[in-house]
Amino acid sequence: MRGSSFGKMLSITSFGESHGIGIGVVVDGVPSGLDFSLDELSAELLRRAPGQVAGTTSRNESDQPEVLSGVFEGKTLGSPIAVLIRNTNQRSGDYDKLKSEYRPGHADETYMKKYGIRDHRGGGRSSGRETIARVIGGYFASLVLPDIQVKGFMMKMGPFDTNEIPIGKDFERDFSPYYYPCSSDTKVEKDKEIRDYLLKLKKDGNSRGGRVSIIAKGVPPGLGEPAFDKLKADLGKALLSIGAVVSFSFGLGEEMADWEGSEVSKDRAHFGGIEGGISNGEDIVMNITFKPTSTVGEKAKEGRHDPCIIPRAIPVAEAMVKLVLADHFLRQKAYEN
Amino acid sequence: MRGSSFGKMLSITSFGESHGIGIGVVVDGVPSGLDFSLDELSAELLRRAPGQVAGTTSRNESDQPEVLSGVFEGKTLGSPIAVLIRNTNQRSGDYDKLKSEYRPGHADETYMKKYGIRDHRGGGRSSGRETIARVIGGYFASLVLPDIQVKGFMMKMGPFDTNEIPIGKDFERDFSPYYYPCSSDTKVEKDKEIRDYLLKLKKDGNSRGGRVSIIAKGVPPGLGEPAFDKLKADLGKALLSIGAVVSFSFGLGEEMADWEGSEVSKDRAHFGGIEGGISNGEDIVMNITFKPTSTVGEKAKEGRHDPCIIPRAIPVAEAMVKLVLADHFLRQKAYEN
Amino acid sequence: MRGSSFGKMLSITSFGESHGIGIGVVVDGVPSGLDFSLDELSAELLRRAPGQVAGTTSRNESDQPEVLSGVFEGKTLGSPIAVLIRNTNQRSGDYDKLKSEYRPGHADETYMKKYGIRDHRGGGRSSGRETIARVIGGYFASLVLPDIQVKGFMMKMGPFDTNEIPIGKDFERDFSPYYYPCSSDTKVEKDKEIRDYLLKLKKDGNSRGGRVSIIAKGVPPGLGEPAFDKLKADLGKALLSIGAVVSFSFGLGEEMADWEGSEVSKDRAHFGGIEGGISNGEDIVMNITFKPTSTVGEKAKEGRHDPCIIPRAIPVAEAMVKLVLADHFLRQKAYEN
Amino acid sequence: MRGSSFGKMLSITSFGESHGIGIGVVVDGVPSGLDFSLDELSAELLRRAPGQVAGTTSRNESDQPEVLSGVFEGKTLGSPIAVLIRNTNQRSGDYDKLKSEYRPGHADETYMKKYGIRDHRGGGRSSGRETIARVIGGYFASLVLPDIQVKGFMMKMGPFDTNEIPIGKDFERDFSPYYYPCSSDTKVEKDKEIRDYLLKLKKDGNSRGGRVSIIAKGVPPGLGEPAFDKLKADLGKALLSIGAVVSFSFGLGEEMADWEGSEVSKDRAHFGGIEGGISNGEDIVMNITFKPTSTVGEKAKEGRHDPCIIPRAIPVAEAMVKLVLADHFLRQKAYEN
Repeated sequence: MRGSSFGKMLSITSFGESHGIGIGVVVDGVPSGLDFSLDELSAELLRRAPGQVAGTTSRNESDQPEVLSGVFEGKTLGSPIAVLIRNTNQRSGDYDKLKSEYRPGHADETYMKKYGIRDHRGGGRSSGRETIARVIGGYFASLVLPDIQVKGFMMKMGPFDTNEIPIGKDFERDFSPYYYPCSSDTKVEKDKEIRDYLLKLKKDGNSRGGRVSIIAKGVPPGLGEPAFDKLKADLGKALLSIGAVVSFSFGLGEEMADWEGSEVSKDRAHFGGIEGGISNGEDIVMNITFKPTSTVGEKAKEGRHDPCIIPRAIPVAEAMVKLVLADHFLRQKAYEN
Repeated sequence: MRGSSFGKMLSITSFGESHGIGIGVVVDGVPSGLDFSLDELSAELLRRAPGQVAGTTSRNESDQPEVLSGVFEGKTLGSPIAVLIRNTNQRSGDYDKLKSEYRPGHADETYMKKYGIRDHRGGGRSSGRETIARVIGGYFASLVLPDIQVKGFMMKMGPFDTNEIPIGKDFERDFSPYYYPCSSDTKVEKDKEIRDYLLKLKKDGNSRGGRVSIIAKGVPPGLGEPAFDKLKADLGKALLSIGAVVSFSFGLGEEMADWEGSEVSKDRAHFGGIEGGISNGEDIVMNITFKPTSTVGEKAKEGRHDPCIIPRAIPVAEAMVKLVLADHFLRQKAYEN
Repeated sequence: MRGSSFGKMLSITSFGESHGIGIGVVVDGVPSGLDFSLDELSAELLRRAPGQVAGTTSRNESDQPEVLSGVFEGKTLGSPIAVLIRNTNQRSGDYDKLKSEYRPGHADETYMKKYGIRDHRGGGRSSGRETIARVIGGYFASLVLPDIQVKGFMMKMGPFDTNEIPIGKDFERDFSPYYYPCSSDTKVEKDKEIRDYLLKLKKDGNSRGGRVSIIAKGVPPGLGEPAFDKLKADLGKALLSIGAVVSFSFGLGEEMADWEGSEVSKDRAHFGGIEGGISNGEDIVMNITFKPTSTVGEKAKEGRHDPCIIPRAIPVAEAMVKLVLADHFLRQKAYEN
Repeated sequence: MRGSSFGKMLSITSFGESHGIGIGVVVDGVPSGLDFSLDELSAELLRRAPGQVAGTTSRNESDQPEVLSGVFEGKTLGSPIAVLIRNTNQRSGDYDKLKSEYRPGHADETYMKKYGIRDHRGGGRSSGRETIARVIGGYFASLVLPDIQVKGFMMKMGPFDTNEIPIGKDFERDFSPYYYPCSSDTKVEKDKEIRDYLLKLKKDGNSRGGRVSIIAKGVPPGLGEPAFDKLKADLGKALLSIGAVVSFSFGLGEEMADWEGSEVSKDRAHFGGIEGGISNGEDIVMNITFKPTSTVGEKAKEGRHDPCIIPRAIPVAEAMVKLVLADHFLRQKAYEN
């Protein structure tokens, strides 16, 4: 009831403060006998770790996951899987200067009002480090759904802006490190441009948000429930629960306000893979907006702040989508004849 | 687990098919001793009923609520409150012609895939009539939160388009029947224009969606939880669970993708009343997009189809917001010192 | 969170006060396409209705169920199933005399302390009429589990006392109307003795409780979860949630305190079909104790009071067991390979 | 949904296998600002640890708790509290001999049927070590309920048998190490007798269960919900979820089957502090039965097996009761005027 758990048949319960001892998660509801790979889990975590791409925060997090339970001899046991990642730079000192100031857009003040006390160790639960728990959960969700692919793309950030949602093509190609969709011949150049832009932003003590598309391929029809747990509603909640996300849409999304019904119904793709709240077997296409990171000015020039969170947030968004799909997959399995 | 319930401390469980015997709801978690008014409940239901405004569906629903439990001598008892509204025009005949066809954007096909059977009586649970349960729930939520006001506005529909979000002014004024924000001297004329537009749409067998803003005033700071049950996440789920809603945002929303961090942090209003996932005491400002109603062409010219769902959907959206706020209000009350 | 719902994958949400408009239930999670029979549901309800057996309360309840949703043309739809039973003798008058007195063992005083108000219409939610919702839920649970049989037996009541738990024999035989296990040649006489005893109790304004055994046959192995949702824990909660039940045990139960481990392990039947909290495929054998009905003295001689609740409570207990088994059956189905 | 979590407003999520890396728990819903003491937590854990009393298992568990989150500078933060206890004697070797045999009364076989795989490292989740998570949860529940006292007593074990439930007297006295209620002048002698009996049992490769009474003092009236979450139902589930518990009763319990209603209603104490499913402000009195430990014969003579689990299980039972009371306390707080 404090909202530290997410999901029903497949659930994650997260714990840990960003500058406490560590961040962890309990993943419950993973069936037994699935193949677990520590390397694959670590690789997924590395995608959200800082320092992978120029321009992102230089905190040297190693993020070594320790699997405490639920896995034995490379197989899931069916019991709750707990994973712990210790904070290696657990220095509250850097944040002492923040003790007396509230940062706009941050949780500082609202937490104070909520809890009556303030954990000045750097935002406590509101920090981006909490998303480690989500990425771990997403990895285990992918074991439940080996045939579903979920990928996120940075569609807009600063001057970079594209509408080429890569549906039905190029899906296998790796758009790393910025997940900006572009053809293979322009990719190297484009990545350099983005990198330079991010470095400039950081130097200026400024930040940017942007727009991300997430596509889920291979989702079977019939996932989602008719009333409150519509698939779009649960996907929306999952993605809006990520700290910096300020909008969610699927299919044509906000554009629907500009269209006439006679046009909309001509192409099923407009509905983004969800009709009546339930998956229809087509690709599920979602769009989310990230706000610029709140820390700007002199503070933002220091080491540990990201000028744009999107490159590190995309693995988190993918993980949340996987968790919702795996949860609904198991739910539907229980009821099917 | 079939998603027929919504909310934790204050919950609604809805039931009923659109062309079955009736639609109902069980509202659980309403404290005892609150004043109940059948007239106020009926008035709220009338707002979502068809036939109130020209251009909306002419189904003559009386929507007389029968309170089956939980209220005695004008006071809530603290026990579950069940309310039933019988379907007065329970004629499946009109829908028999739909038996063999699937309508794009409707749940017809996805339901078939999900359940393996088809209830051809008009969409079953996916119909707009299911929203009656939400409006009833919202009424009881407002008893829990007498000091909070929640109002929706039609910001865009066809040629009608405004950005005058009525924050901090005019809030008490009634924008009915179309909830389009405009000054009192242009209101009569504007309402006539909208009415004419809707009648034309219907005559053409066409439909429109649009954009709606919802504002919640008087929300105390501290509502929402830090991780998965962020207030924005639960509000997003609540509104995205409404059939025709295809996007949700709050504060600057999608516009955040165009802003620099240094600008965003200059005005707290950009965050829409929610920071770190928790209410900050300011007005909460949300935007949602409605898709055009799916039924177009000759069928849409018949009596019972709405060319635009927004006027009837706004009371539903308000109800969902109230339910989320009341739920989080009770949750926070349990933990406060 | 007010505890009006029970179950996860298959859930019931009950509503209604005993002397309000009616009693109802929403059963959610019943798969689609199952055969529904109003006659069978009514027959099940008749078993718990008063007036079936001499000695039980003479309130003439007709208990005609109205299925409001979730069933169409004799099949379950997969949507929530709501059933309403109107109270036919909704006379608060009889209870006016109770307004100012608290009955020991009744909820009168604790409700007042809990809710701050008192619904003097006869106990409100604590009345036996609330169990109608459970019996209805149990009927639908049996549709999910057609191969499982659940039967209750009155093992002890007043001078009637037997240890012949009919495991592995006689299961099909009908022990009605008192569910007292005895051989077919003594049955007519025994039933007459019990009837005479109950009539005498009532004439004396006295009441009795007793002990009931419930046996579930055909339960597949593997139901129940290892930690908190052990099958024994969920069965215990289900049965202890019935008003008059004051104890629960399974297998050897309380007798285990008298046995040495070396003896216990010799016969698997001692564990009552549950090992490690999980069903082992054997018959599940449970025992519960009912307290005597609280109303005694002159009041108890009036029409509507039962001198012993067991004959009417056995169908309720069976229903609760079925609900737990069906819920765990669906849960396990989701996780199985 | 795999039942690894317990509680609603105050919940515990447990993880860890007995012979894996460690056992842990996430306690969510503890309000912020409460005083935490690692010493008190460790002391509580020491009570359930082996080796405290002669006759109990000689496994040398150190059970040093590491608080991973949710506590800072001696105060709870309001965020989820994770605690980990590493298994120090993580030797699967001792259990290799069990690989191919199923022990009656153990979870060995039912787990195999449930999960399709077997973790032969000593029972996995069904081991007594899982109860560490419960004791930790109970400690935090006691922070929420500083004015409530919960104590368990061994009422019967082998030849030791008493009915002197210490209600209303002697409550503060420490009955350790066996929690057998007796007057202070006979205590030393009685403890020696019990110790000798346990040593003899072990030498014989035999085991015993017994009966335990648990008393909760200072519980405010009004806890528990009227329908399914009656206080007795939730207490029953909590205690029956402990591995070796095979019965639960409260108040007169099973004896109610022998009493007439006219006698029962004469003394409120017969109802054990719960009327209508809700606490009435009196002492809550519960009785549970423990089965003998399943391991008997030559194996039981080896080091690590308890001839009677009760001395170590009493702190676990107390913890479960505290968790239920604290959960219902927070629930009621949300609804109170």
